[in-house]
Amino acid sequence: MVTLGMILEARERLKGVAQRTGLVQFKALSDEGSQIYLKTEDLQNTGSFKVRGAYIKIASLTDEERACGVIASSAGNHAQGVALAARAFGVPATIVMPEGAPLSKVKATRELGAKVVLYGAAYDDAYAEACRIQKETGATFIHPFDDEMVIAGQGTIGLEIMDDLPDVTSIVVPIGGGGLASGVAAAVKMLHPQVRVIGVQAAGAAGMKASIDAGHVVTLDSAKTIADGIAVKTPGEHTFELCSQYLDEVVTVDDDEIAQAILFLMERGKMVAEGAGAAPVAAIMNRKFDVSGKVVAVISGGNIDVTMISRIIEKGMLRAGRMSKLRIVMQDRPGQLEIVSKIIGGNGANVMAIHHDRTDVDLDIRDAILEITMETQDRAHAQRIIGLLREAGFTVM
Amino acid sequence: MVTLGMILEARERLKGVAQRTGLVQFKALSDEGSQIYLKTEDLQNTGSFKVRGAYIKIASLTDEERACGVIASSAGNHAQGVALAARAFGVPATIVMPEGAPLSKVKATRELGAKVVLYGAAYDDAYAEACRIQKETGATFIHPFDDEMVIAGQGTIGLEIMDDLPDVTSIVVPIGGGGLASGVAAAVKMLHPQVRVIGVQAAGAAGMKASIDAGHVVTLDSAKTIADGIAVKTPGEHTFELCSQYLDEVVTVDDDEIAQAILFLMERGKMVAEGAGAAPVAAIMNRKFDVSGKVVAVISGGNIDVTMISRIIEKGMLRAGRMSKLRIVMQDRPGQLEIVSKIIGGNGANVMAIHHDRTDVDLDIRDAILEITMETQDRAHAQRIIGLLREAGFTVM
Repeated sequence: MVTLGMILEARERLKGVAQRTGLVQFKALSDEGSQIYLKTEDLQNTGSFKVRGAYIKIASLTDEERACGVIASSAGNHAQGVALAARAFGVPATIVMPEGAPLSKVKATRELGAKVVLYGAAYDDAYAEACRIQKETGATFIHPFDDEMVIAGQGTIGLEIMDDLPDVTSIVVPIGGGGLASGVAAAVKMLHPQVRVIGVQAAGAAGMKASIDAGHVVTLDSAKTIADGIAVKTPGEHTFELCSQYLDEVVTVDDDEIAQAILFLMERGKMVAEGAGAAPVAAIMNRKFDVSGKVVAVISGGNIDVTMISRIIEKGMLRAGRMSKLRIVMQDRPGQLEIVSKIIGGNGANVMAIHHDRTDVDLDIRDAILEITMETQDRAHAQRIIGLLREAGFTVM
Repeated sequence: MVTLGMILEARERLKGVAQRTGLVQFKALSDEGSQIYLKTEDLQNTGSFKVRGAYIKIASLTDEERACGVIASSAGNHAQGVALAARAFGVPATIVMPEGAPLSKVKATRELGAKVVLYGAAYDDAYAEACRIQKETGATFIHPFDDEMVIAGQGTIGLEIMDDLPDVTSIVVPIGGGGLASGVAAAVKMLHPQVRVIGVQAAGAAGMKASIDAGHVVTLDSAKTIADGIAVKTPGEHTFELCSQYLDEVVTVDDDEIAQAILFLMERGKMVAEGAGAAPVAAIMNRKFDVSGKVVAVISGGNIDVTMISRIIEKGMLRAGRMSKLRIVMQDRPGQLEIVSKIIGGNGANVMAIHHDRTDVDLDIRDAILEITMETQDRAHAQRIIGLLREAGFTVM
């Protein structure tokens, strides 16, 4: 049972440990009928909300339990949350991470004083190894979501939102295992049942939605999404109960929608959000639920690998028509490239990359393929340039 | 003359127009002796501080002047600042932008209701065209920095910092033409002369520093920096006087230092800053001045093209040894790639891209070149893998 008292107590305990993160209006996404606010847990210590739950869990341990240390398995934010919380209590922490975990996260976890064990290819392997070590050492296993103390810790976010925006209409929360959503929904609904709480899952990892639809916990065959923070196959038992009871709705967003939201937050919000953190914004942008009134999107974290940001930028530019890749068939003789360049440059597009190839098997012996990546204003702009190239006699694919 | 009264008056006028931006502590860059705070003008309306000065300037115009409209030349933030300020007064605005201006900024300026004229290859051409149109139309030219009302508007940032952190030791401000630095320094020094105010210029565009050293305004031959917001060849007359009088120090940062600061702000601050906005952080990171005490870095704006972010990420990863490009000479026969892959993967690095070439003229006929881009933890990690490849008989360049 997660009670309001547990969440209120968690709030007191977290003072001085977790940041009291801000709630900022996001004008770029707001209009008359719909004011969007962001709860900025990307600015939380360790870059995600996870430290809240981990700290409350460790606070609930006895001195004997603490002496044996804590252990967790995680590829990401939970690792750093547990490491920071354990350090605050002077408790030794072991974190088992899969071998493919982002190097930046391994390093950050080590820097927080935890012992990192790299094991196995996937999260499940790391989890099994953590259970093995747990039996050996007697350390307390800190579950990433399916634990009432952890849930109570995450619930403090709900209290903070209600303090900052008492007349909020809806709160949108990402769901992986369901710890954050359970905590926030429980806190908000126990105090203000009229406030709507909406969960957002990645379409490729919508285990909580499937479970609520089925009426019992189900395990997905796979959990595929760029939002690694919510790539979970099986929701928890506690979290399933709480999400079933308290959430008004669970919606899904696909990877393209998440990537666009990450880009939108960067460009218009000047904010770095990870996939899970951007999922609520993706749900708002794509009107996956009734966004009227005052809507709070919980940006759960900002720990995204910069290489992923690079890829998202490129993909987002292509999708929005702000970057276009053209394959142009042209005769392999001097002067052709000049004509193409003139059409592109003279119409306000910038060439970003050029690749020229004469060896394509499908080509006439006298032709060459020119691959051009150009920066354009939007899709219409790109289409206009393609039209002009065709008028000039080029085959554009 | 810029008086304290003008700046105080500007603060009153800006209420409801410009955001009262926050001052946030930047823990990742702080230690016991040095607490770093960020003044987040990247979250200002239009994504930079420029709207402050532009609004105060337009507020000072007569009804007759306003009826003739305003005109400005800018490749970036000033364009959007003037457009937004003009819209607030219902004054028609014409902005002349060079033809190579980032498409996103052209679009944003148009969306704010300004008429955009694209003219010439460089800022100077656009400026000349703006002067021509100004004579034709009688519109008021809004200078991007060398105007007392504009300077008074930017000075409000100094007042806000003093309100939020009365015991600040030093304030660090980027300098291009010097409008922001003049306003902030004037406001701060007239009220609290003991607070140090430090200007930061891009090393490739340090015209204000050269002018102060020379004792008069000098024009640089070129202004080359990735921080386009401060790429200015000639500082203003007013701003030169004010910066000479009020700044304690002017330091410079190079493009690498700026790029690293942009990356650091993204990864550790979850914040998107443009080059000019990151320059004060670069100065702090590289200890270009005495950073003890409470130091405020003015993040002047966040309008950076996402394609530039991509490039900075790649460059930053290479520099920090988190991404390494290897050229490996290997015999062109089956099984070789497998050995290389095993050494790289087995030692915790991730392969990001592979390019294989047999046609390099410098190669023995039986050899091939393998170019591998891999993600590594740091430089030492990359060196370890290179050592293992060499031990296995490969030539690594």
